[in-house]
Amino acid sequence: MNQTYPSRLLEKAVQEFSQLPGIGRKTALRLVLHLLRQERADVERFADAVATMRREVKFCRICHNISDTDTCPICSNPRRDASTVCVVENIQDVMAVENTQQYNGLYHVLGGLISPIDGIAPADLEIDSLADRVAAGGISEVILALSPTMEGDTTSFYIFRRLASYNVRVSIIARGIAVGNELEYTDEVTLGRSILNRTPFEGK
Amino acid sequence: MNQTYPSRLLEKAVQEFSQLPGIGRKTALRLVLHLLRQERADVERFADAVATMRREVKFCRICHNISDTDTCPICSNPRRDASTVCVVENIQDVMAVENTQQYNGLYHVLGGLISPIDGIAPADLEIDSLADRVAAGGISEVILALSPTMEGDTTSFYIFRRLASYNVRVSIIARGIAVGNELEYTDEVTLGRSILNRTPFEGK
Repeated sequence: MNQTYPSRLLEKAVQEFSQLPGIGRKTALRLVLHLLRQERADVERFADAVATMRREVKFCRICHNISDTDTCPICSNPRRDASTVCVVENIQDVMAVENTQQYNGLYHVLGGLISPIDGIAPADLEIDSLADRVAAGGISEVILALSPTMEGDTTSFYIFRRLASYNVRVSIIARGIAVGNELEYTDEVTLGRSILNRTPFEGK
Repeated sequence: MNQTYPSRLLEKAVQEFSQLPGIGRKTALRLVLHLLRQERADVERFADAVATMRREVKFCRICHNISDTDTCPICSNPRRDASTVCVVENIQDVMAVENTQQYNGLYHVLGGLISPIDGIAPADLEIDSLADRVAAGGISEVILALSPTMEGDTTSFYIFRRLASYNVRVSIIARGIAVGNELEYTDEVTLGRSILNRTPFEGK
């Protein structure tokens, strides 16, 4: 549908919004008309927050997580266990692991997964820098916390091989039936793995 | 979930996005991380388009549609029929009617519908200005094109009464079964109305 907008300024704003992932032209128009009804100062603050974020956000020089400073708050926190590094695909995954409150080590953000189909090779990811961190010493365990997909498994295996020559323990997060899921509806690969990787029952 | 963001700048941008209608914190984060991966100039252009739109967009002094100029392109177009005014709820509805390419008159944007529950009274809408337009003369027909809801019907009826003393024809857009819909699944009120308001079969 070739939409005719009553205003070029409106059209430009709708155009920009509809470039965002998952935002079509109808949704973009709804968002823009919402902003049009807000106070001018509120809209300026919105625009400014977005532009400032893009301009000033940094990537941690150690773990490549985003940060307001050269070294992120996690890497620079002396109370975190610097001998353990959890390898994740992206920033959201750091936040997901942090939210569990079950992990007190550091992170390493790869910035993606190896995917020949999408043309993403190991050199496109922060794998060299991970090897450098391990080579520098002080790290006793690397935990691979990548998605249990073809790309995730490929990347885990690549990193495992890459770190084989270093004196470091490489572990992978447990796969099994998700808490709250019905056994009956769990896929057979997951269920099979959860039987193979059974753990002693703690009875408490 | 009390999410901990690795960056205050990121958090502020996510916060701003999640104020938008239909955008939760997860979606906001996804949008912000998408923008973070774009070129800085592209993000500046996004922010600028939004702020400029809010700052500079005007409302047409005649029909209250949004416009880049004091009088909108429709009202200032001499090829449009100035004797017919189509009354709509909002800007989207102007665009919807324009897209049909079946209407060549002018518009009047109410800016909402009468809704006692939401505290929207006739005085909150552009109804006085509609009466003023009709009183000024030159308008022979007012077409009510409001949603067939309780609020829409109330507003249509209010406008009809308000314009009763003027020498102007007031019409309402046809209600009936939607083109492409199955008769069987059409609700009975709509189907009943479509029988009462049947039109001569043109046989072409």
